[in-house]
Amino acid sequence: MKIAVLGTGVVGQVVAEKLAELGHEVTIGTRNVNNVLAVKGPDRFGRASFSDWFKDHPKVKLATFAEAAQTGELIVNATNGMASLSALELAGADNMKDKILLDISNPLDFSKGMPPTLSVCNTDSLGEQIQRTYPHTKVVKSLNTLNAYVQVNPAIVPGDHTIFISGNDANAKSKVRSLLNSFGWKNDNILDLGDITTSRGVEQLSPLWVRLLGVFQSGNFNIHVVKAK
Amino acid sequence: MKIAVLGTGVVGQVVAEKLAELGHEVTIGTRNVNNVLAVKGPDRFGRASFSDWFKDHPKVKLATFAEAAQTGELIVNATNGMASLSALELAGADNMKDKILLDISNPLDFSKGMPPTLSVCNTDSLGEQIQRTYPHTKVVKSLNTLNAYVQVNPAIVPGDHTIFISGNDANAKSKVRSLLNSFGWKNDNILDLGDITTSRGVEQLSPLWVRLLGVFQSGNFNIHVVKAK
Repeated sequence: MKIAVLGTGVVGQVVAEKLAELGHEVTIGTRNVNNVLAVKGPDRFGRASFSDWFKDHPKVKLATFAEAAQTGELIVNATNGMASLSALELAGADNMKDKILLDISNPLDFSKGMPPTLSVCNTDSLGEQIQRTYPHTKVVKSLNTLNAYVQVNPAIVPGDHTIFISGNDANAKSKVRSLLNSFGWKNDNILDLGDITTSRGVEQLSPLWVRLLGVFQSGNFNIHVVKAK
Repeated sequence: MKIAVLGTGVVGQVVAEKLAELGHEVTIGTRNVNNVLAVKGPDRFGRASFSDWFKDHPKVKLATFAEAAQTGELIVNATNGMASLSALELAGADNMKDKILLDISNPLDFSKGMPPTLSVCNTDSLGEQIQRTYPHTKVVKSLNTLNAYVQVNPAIVPGDHTIFISGNDANAKSKVRSLLNSFGWKNDNILDLGDITTSRGVEQLSPLWVRLLGVFQSGNFNIHVVKAK
């Protein structure tokens, strides 16, 4: 399948790499292709620059948000949550019309230091904002409760653990479920919470996730929802 | 131990019953003793009234918030989160001074219908508000991520699952940990998140909890935090 992955950060890179490995034709979308390729050397976390990563992944294409969204049959929002709405505006409503948008983002605001806060929460969510802004796009929220490596390789965390799925369109959720299966997620561990308003619940997991990151000093963890028989 | 349980709702009842079974001297605190005993017959959820419950639990005492807090060596805040600060004001700072306050409440606002929203979240939490208001009381947040029955009987949910603990005072957290052990929580499943600001993370689990309640049609579930080895 032709898939557009919007965002050149670690989530975009890891998801794009996995999708390319699985045989999909992946185009990463970004605000300005020349600008992102001009950044050289490791970032402030010591990770390779996007341009270095891109050289090592010749199967993955790079284009503007609009070009990527246009070519993608499915679109993945892996942009920084604070910039997602402006990135999607550049992607363009027409280029996303009638398509599935898998929204991985969290509206985390790091501008006031740690711990980050949510720029939208409680009575609304970024998932809902995106769905309201693009009513002809089928928004499915998933994977945002995990770090990128666990998203595409659940076996990093041992045993059973849960991935959530939220969205208004049953068929779109079914297709995202298949994609999750191809990442290694078992159906029994995929929990459909309901419509897109349930994005509030999963986005508000971020504050706990950040605290657990602090305790474990590693993002390789998840939660498993366990219920009485 | 002499324990004050503030709140006559289902959480107060279930926790008080468990503590009495364990041999503690339990006094339930309420706003107005005569008023709460005057309510007869089942409530809107079909549960027995507090006065009926109270007749069936002769070991448990009933008193005003202030009297209960005064006699308690440990105080449990099991009031409705929207009313917790006013209940604690009636309990009185002097009656809670130098004592541990186990805060089980969630600031859930049901006044605008379902799903409820949080009256405080993101940049603050009820746990922090209580700790700021009563700096000489050792506030420990725990158990608020579960329904009352699972709180005091983790075996309702099979296998391993996690209970969180937040607070500024290590000794107070250690004592609450012992209390959790006596409820059946294994040390490996008690996860200390850090100081009282981590209440934000656990209180913001409520929106997900409410959605899971909708999916399962039962509150007998929990989450297990699983990490890579």
